[in-house]
Amino acid sequence: MRLVLEAAVPGRRELVPLRQAAGRRLAEAITATTDWPPFARSGLDGFAVRSADTTLASPSTPATLRVVSSVAAGELASAAVAPGTAVRIMTGGPVPLGADAVVMLEQTADALVDGLPAVHVKRAAEPGQNIAPRGEEFRCGSVIAEPGTRLRPGHVALLGTFGYADVPVYARPRVAVLATGAELLPVEAALAPGCIRDSNSAMVAALVEQCGGEALVLRRVPDEPEATARAIAEALAQSELIITTGGVSVGDYDVIASLLRGLEPSDGAAESPAFPAVDSPAPIEAKLPQASRLLFNKVAMRPGSPTSAALMEGKLLLALSGNPGACFVGFELFAKPAIQRLQGAGVNESLPKQVTAKLASPFDKGSPHERFVRTRLISRDGMLFADPLAFSKSSMMASIPDADGLIRLKASPEGAAADTIVDIILL
Amino acid sequence: MRLVLEAAVPGRRELVPLRQAAGRRLAEAITATTDWPPFARSGLDGFAVRSADTTLASPSTPATLRVVSSVAAGELASAAVAPGTAVRIMTGGPVPLGADAVVMLEQTADALVDGLPAVHVKRAAEPGQNIAPRGEEFRCGSVIAEPGTRLRPGHVALLGTFGYADVPVYARPRVAVLATGAELLPVEAALAPGCIRDSNSAMVAALVEQCGGEALVLRRVPDEPEATARAIAEALAQSELIITTGGVSVGDYDVIASLLRGLEPSDGAAESPAFPAVDSPAPIEAKLPQASRLLFNKVAMRPGSPTSAALMEGKLLLALSGNPGACFVGFELFAKPAIQRLQGAGVNESLPKQVTAKLASPFDKGSPHERFVRTRLISRDGMLFADPLAFSKSSMMASIPDADGLIRLKASPEGAAADTIVDIILL
Repeated sequence: MRLVLEAAVPGRRELVPLRQAAGRRLAEAITATTDWPPFARSGLDGFAVRSADTTLASPSTPATLRVVSSVAAGELASAAVAPGTAVRIMTGGPVPLGADAVVMLEQTADALVDGLPAVHVKRAAEPGQNIAPRGEEFRCGSVIAEPGTRLRPGHVALLGTFGYADVPVYARPRVAVLATGAELLPVEAALAPGCIRDSNSAMVAALVEQCGGEALVLRRVPDEPEATARAIAEALAQSELIITTGGVSVGDYDVIASLLRGLEPSDGAAESPAFPAVDSPAPIEAKLPQASRLLFNKVAMRPGSPTSAALMEGKLLLALSGNPGACFVGFELFAKPAIQRLQGAGVNESLPKQVTAKLASPFDKGSPHERFVRTRLISRDGMLFADPLAFSKSSMMASIPDADGLIRLKASPEGAAADTIVDIILL
Repeated sequence: MRLVLEAAVPGRRELVPLRQAAGRRLAEAITATTDWPPFARSGLDGFAVRSADTTLASPSTPATLRVVSSVAAGELASAAVAPGTAVRIMTGGPVPLGADAVVMLEQTADALVDGLPAVHVKRAAEPGQNIAPRGEEFRCGSVIAEPGTRLRPGHVALLGTFGYADVPVYARPRVAVLATGAELLPVEAALAPGCIRDSNSAMVAALVEQCGGEALVLRRVPDEPEATARAIAEALAQSELIITTGGVSVGDYDVIASLLRGLEPSDGAAESPAFPAVDSPAPIEAKLPQASRLLFNKVAMRPGSPTSAALMEGKLLLALSGNPGACFVGFELFAKPAIQRLQGAGVNESLPKQVTAKLASPFDKGSPHERFVRTRLISRDGMLFADPLAFSKSSMMASIPDADGLIRLKASPEGAAADTIVDIILL
């Protein structure tokens, strides 16, 4: 993850209209352009008064005040509130000079004094009551959101309030998606013997868009190194990140693995974890860009151990497993953080969001490497319970749509007992 | 909520390409069009064998089998596996006839027997080992997702697998957004005395789009009943749901409240909760459509008590508070469920998603009505803690972007003590 995040450098910026800013990440800090509220505002409909005039007010002995003016939201009062007077005021209206409290309409009654409009106030008002003072929420110039912040609807409200009709954000990273595998048919094709439809491309594209990227699904290429290297070179020209699926195992036709074996490790690249030795086919004379370097090949995890990564002309290539379950886990652990980082998220904020939960049932399968188990999450009495899903093998798809999270199980020969507190990556 | 959900009837359907299906809701049940896997598949790279041939195998006394064929993914084996033979097989390749186990490459060594290719198998294979049997995950015809399901990337993978190049989904509901308030300036305007910028329109539009709707932001209208009624009638022609903000209080210029006061209650409409009586201005001779009926005016909750709803020509109008905090809560409680329902979500699935959590600090403000307090959620040792945010008053915006949830506090003169288990609406 560290290697991937170091390689994913926040990139292009753009200015988008406020209406399109939600979900994007800020490219610059945004500050309050005025105090907020910009003036002392009434919190409700009622009467602006001098609290001292109401000290003895009660339902049986109301304070009677002459109503000298009326102020709606968007208006200014034509008169200040002098002793013995009140101003009718609406929610959001600016509190007139002289007044230090607003009495809600429900605690008043209309009255007449010498034939002129007045109001009976039936309860003593506290100074400041029902008034939002100027600058209560924000002082002019204070930072309302830092660069890298993902804009939620609440940020949109603040941006609107402070007059940001256009918002500086990072551009959506373009992510090329390339499925490999001679067995793959297009989704619209009829099944042929021994073949399956390419479901990874559409799944990965959906995942890319879910985390803010723009997916560019490439045509599948045959399991042939030169054609694959050419497709990768073309993808590099059009994208900031390349995600491949399949071809990363130790089989004779694993074209991505063959290409990556030909690369020099980058400075600081990870040591290959201690997997059982295999007589690998010889590395292919790769047609990959000269500046390509290996970041890591294989990861000590399950599923998804064949997941690999390289840097090509400064851009990241993530090679995910072709097994849908392993592809999904590899995406969540490596591609999603990279896509967040490319959009300007901080390094820590780019990492998967984690919570802790109690295992609702034992998971009795050990693993020599950390294991990521798809799970449902259940909330009961303030406690979060993780209930591991069936059909969670690397080749399996059935449990992917139902998963709320991935349980992180440490490498262990035994698995984990029920009631163990475990870390959960939220999906 | 019940009244709103009864009024929001799932509407238009459409067929979208698989690449655009993520995030949409299914209009029809989707079934497996084949068994899955469609044939017995190898889970890894290795050799397909008859397990009986390997019963005595060990690293020092390997079983030696002749390799009669090779099968890559997408191919069929040219020969069956007869006793004493093996077939080289790649991940995802169809297991040839005769074989009942796959031995991983790492547990084998290449060999020659009489100058012909062979393999040493160093460990006894269990029957079925490393093979995903046909139909293990899905049987042909079984339902993979019900109507109303929100499609996640994992569903997209399943739809691709089963050949759904186009997917029947509910259309995105068109939601008209109409802000009222004479004090409102456009976002791009300079502030004027007593005025504020309209931040609710952009916030509500972002919320609408976050839950799958298409927002149509209307031009602000003056606080004038006829112009407002005309704007509503125009919005009805273009949308399935109308959301107004502001003008729902008891003030003299509360145009939406005035219009709604003129409506007949619908059959089964909610009784107005017992709010303090006010001398309301007379109802306005409304120019609303004749078929308009009131669903409820005001809700016994804080913030957002002025929230009201009506049915107009069979379509729902939700009148939210103009106070940003109250507007946000009203949206989450009423508009979001309606938008989910319009997209075909089941009634229960349309309701806000809730968990329970422990109050991290006391909330000492009582309320005569149920209160919804913006909160951060913190996970520790499997427990979820709710830490109420400051700046949560109905007029306040500052805490909206930071909120993970809304604490539901029951009506009580005292508030709630730390460590109380509370219900939380997830945002």
